[in-house]
Amino acid sequence: MSKTRIKTYDKIVIESLKLFNEHGERAITTNHISAHLGISPGNLYYHFRNKEEIVFQIFREYEAFIRDQLAPKTEGTITPQALSDQLDALFKGMWNYRFLFDDLPGLLSRNPQLQAEYHATIGTDLRPMMGDMLKGFARAGLLTFSSDEEIEQLAVNIWLVVKFWYAFEQSAAPKVPISAETGRRGARQVLALMRPYVTPDNKAAFTELDAHYR
Amino acid sequence: MSKTRIKTYDKIVIESLKLFNEHGERAITTNHISAHLGISPGNLYYHFRNKEEIVFQIFREYEAFIRDQLAPKTEGTITPQALSDQLDALFKGMWNYRFLFDDLPGLLSRNPQLQAEYHATIGTDLRPMMGDMLKGFARAGLLTFSSDEEIEQLAVNIWLVVKFWYAFEQSAAPKVPISAETGRRGARQVLALMRPYVTPDNKAAFTELDAHYR
Repeated sequence: MSKTRIKTYDKIVIESLKLFNEHGERAITTNHISAHLGISPGNLYYHFRNKEEIVFQIFREYEAFIRDQLAPKTEGTITPQALSDQLDALFKGMWNYRFLFDDLPGLLSRNPQLQAEYHATIGTDLRPMMGDMLKGFARAGLLTFSSDEEIEQLAVNIWLVVKFWYAFEQSAAPKVPISAETGRRGARQVLALMRPYVTPDNKAAFTELDAHYR
Repeated sequence: MSKTRIKTYDKIVIESLKLFNEHGERAITTNHISAHLGISPGNLYYHFRNKEEIVFQIFREYEAFIRDQLAPKTEGTITPQALSDQLDALFKGMWNYRFLFDDLPGLLSRNPQLQAEYHATIGTDLRPMMGDMLKGFARAGLLTFSSDEEIEQLAVNIWLVVKFWYAFEQSAAPKVPISAETGRRGARQVLALMRPYVTPDNKAAFTELDAHYR
């Protein structure tokens, strides 16, 4: 019994994420989700009181993903290649959760629980991790900065480009489906943000990374 | 008669813009707009067939504003101070049209006329102007680049930060009202994007500019 229960719960989360990404969160109701899964609305309500709870659960997964991406690395493992792999993973992950960023201010304003969680973690906890990550790159000799403020500003710009990249590309060319190529272009935009801070020893490796995304 | 007609038309556009910015475009109907203006729905429909036409008209104004901002400057007038004034004007202007960027992909998908206009101008016409502007800065000796691609990537990153700055700040701190200070922080983020490309002669002037935004 417990096993089936967990399975349905997970299925609801996984399939809701797909529906939200495809049609936008606002267009999808709990009735759409239960019909899509072939379960009764009552069965869905047994697991989630409303759509907002499903969105919240998806957001928790996104958070865990970002936390994992930004986790401090051991110094020896910070190489241009590792950075490239990380960028790949980051843009692939963002693509999985893209509905969250189509209308983030609206989504937060309609979901108080989500809003509280968002500010308890993203703003105060995860955003500083991006700065710490860049400091780790500096300690490993990959990047060099002239002040902590330079690091903070770069961290904000990277955060913003990563977060809104798919919304930006979608509005620039709505008839072109978002693809792996879109993610690669996003990764190159982030590399372009970092390039001015790459140490002379790593310039060549960085140029190669950029070539890898073409 | 013609004078009154123009006045009502303009009033509808101006007040709709205010309502969209305050409550989001989706929450506002033509009935809200006519009630807010103290005119009959019939009077509103005399000027605009539907809300989408009002949004379209506002978008045309936004376009004219951006075109003006990005217009080529005479070389002698390109100075750090002029750049700073331009950034001020840009972020103030973006603030005036902020509802457009809360959920841009959604807004475009609901408004085919807007979508066509958006792609006829923003993507193909205005976006390249940002690159041309940076090339003008380079010719004036303010910035220096090692390749055209570097310019293009910087242009895209600036475009993205300007476009999504208010949405970014709003999601980071929804209870803090967006203010002039928010725009100044955005301007500093754009300066941070440009700083690595500032020529040695202009480094000091750029540091002063940055101080002006604190």
